[in-house]
Amino acid sequence: MQRAEYPEEIQNLIQQLKRLPGVGPRSAERLALHLLSTRTQHPLDLAQALMAAIQGVGPCSRCGFYRGVRALCAVCDAVGRDESVLCVVEQPADVLPLERTKGFNGRYHVLGGRLSPLSGVQPEHLRLALLTERVRAGGVSEVILALSADVEGEATAHFIAQSLAAEPVTVTRLAQGLPAGGGLEQADELTLFRALAGRCAVR
Amino acid sequence: MQRAEYPEEIQNLIQQLKRLPGVGPRSAERLALHLLSTRTQHPLDLAQALMAAIQGVGPCSRCGFYRGVRALCAVCDAVGRDESVLCVVEQPADVLPLERTKGFNGRYHVLGGRLSPLSGVQPEHLRLALLTERVRAGGVSEVILALSADVEGEATAHFIAQSLAAEPVTVTRLAQGLPAGGGLEQADELTLFRALAGRCAVR
Repeated sequence: MQRAEYPEEIQNLIQQLKRLPGVGPRSAERLALHLLSTRTQHPLDLAQALMAAIQGVGPCSRCGFYRGVRALCAVCDAVGRDESVLCVVEQPADVLPLERTKGFNGRYHVLGGRLSPLSGVQPEHLRLALLTERVRAGGVSEVILALSADVEGEATAHFIAQSLAAEPVTVTRLAQGLPAGGGLEQADELTLFRALAGRCAVR
Repeated sequence: MQRAEYPEEIQNLIQQLKRLPGVGPRSAERLALHLLSTRTQHPLDLAQALMAAIQGVGPCSRCGFYRGVRALCAVCDAVGRDESVLCVVEQPADVLPLERTKGFNGRYHVLGGRLSPLSGVQPEHLRLALLTERVRAGGVSEVILALSADVEGEATAHFIAQSLAAEPVTVTRLAQGLPAGGGLEQADELTLFRALAGRCAVR
């Protein structure tokens, strides 16, 4: 006995949706049927928004964050930000979480990844030369390294600190320790070790 | 202090993704950034698959299930299916779950919804006249009503049974009772009542 299937167009749409992170076969099918069953403008709007984003969004020519039609991103384009502090992050997606803290008003520099010899990511694959260039251009007094708290992040931080050693800038990195709301019993050994090593005076 | 935001194209894409079922603001943002960060063909493939599905997929002119480029769907197009049994479902999405049971080899008829006076769904909004037409055309000996086991599904089943009363066909509906693997303690009162009312001899 044969079993009927969806038309090719729907099967193809399900295949493409299944490639999204966190979308399994079941939810891909549900999403596809939802998109086709709504008699609204939505599916077309979604397809067009996707095309517009693919075609219109690129890296900011200065810092590497996402930019739209302009050559610079919203951060580099903004006036009144502190030009003397540069925050180095791995991915463009790391910028907005930092913005949301409202604790930073400087500029950013997106590396586009982190050093990882095992995965073949060498210094020349990252925007490291551009970082040195920006620092050498002057006006920067502090470089904050907001990189992952793992081995590759540490290695990248170390590499940057060395390459900026001759420049007249302070290089700092984010504090490592207990996450907000985290008790000691939930913290793993390494986190606790770093929290202990980075302890500071209460007053 | 101002906070930077994504370029308009990304914000728009996030808005459109957020309208999908089960996609919240966080996952919409994650999906958008994932689509833009992959340097593969995938985002473009997805946009094109969506456009192709919107433009190419429509209801089968006979049964109402999804069809692609052809005028008929995969079920109506198939040879060797039992023409004498017609299974009535509410939505096109109900067809494949029934196909997957491998327990049915007849044809389908998709109503496009169910009667719901409160939501303004009247008989003329559903493919009910087409159903009567197909039955009157002859060759059908049984109409199986595979509708939801709720008040509106029951009302729709009742309406169809009445409108086919004068035709020489048997009208049946799906059994209601305990779901597979379900114990009595998980079953709600109504399910248990129906399981009891629909009891059948063990041998």
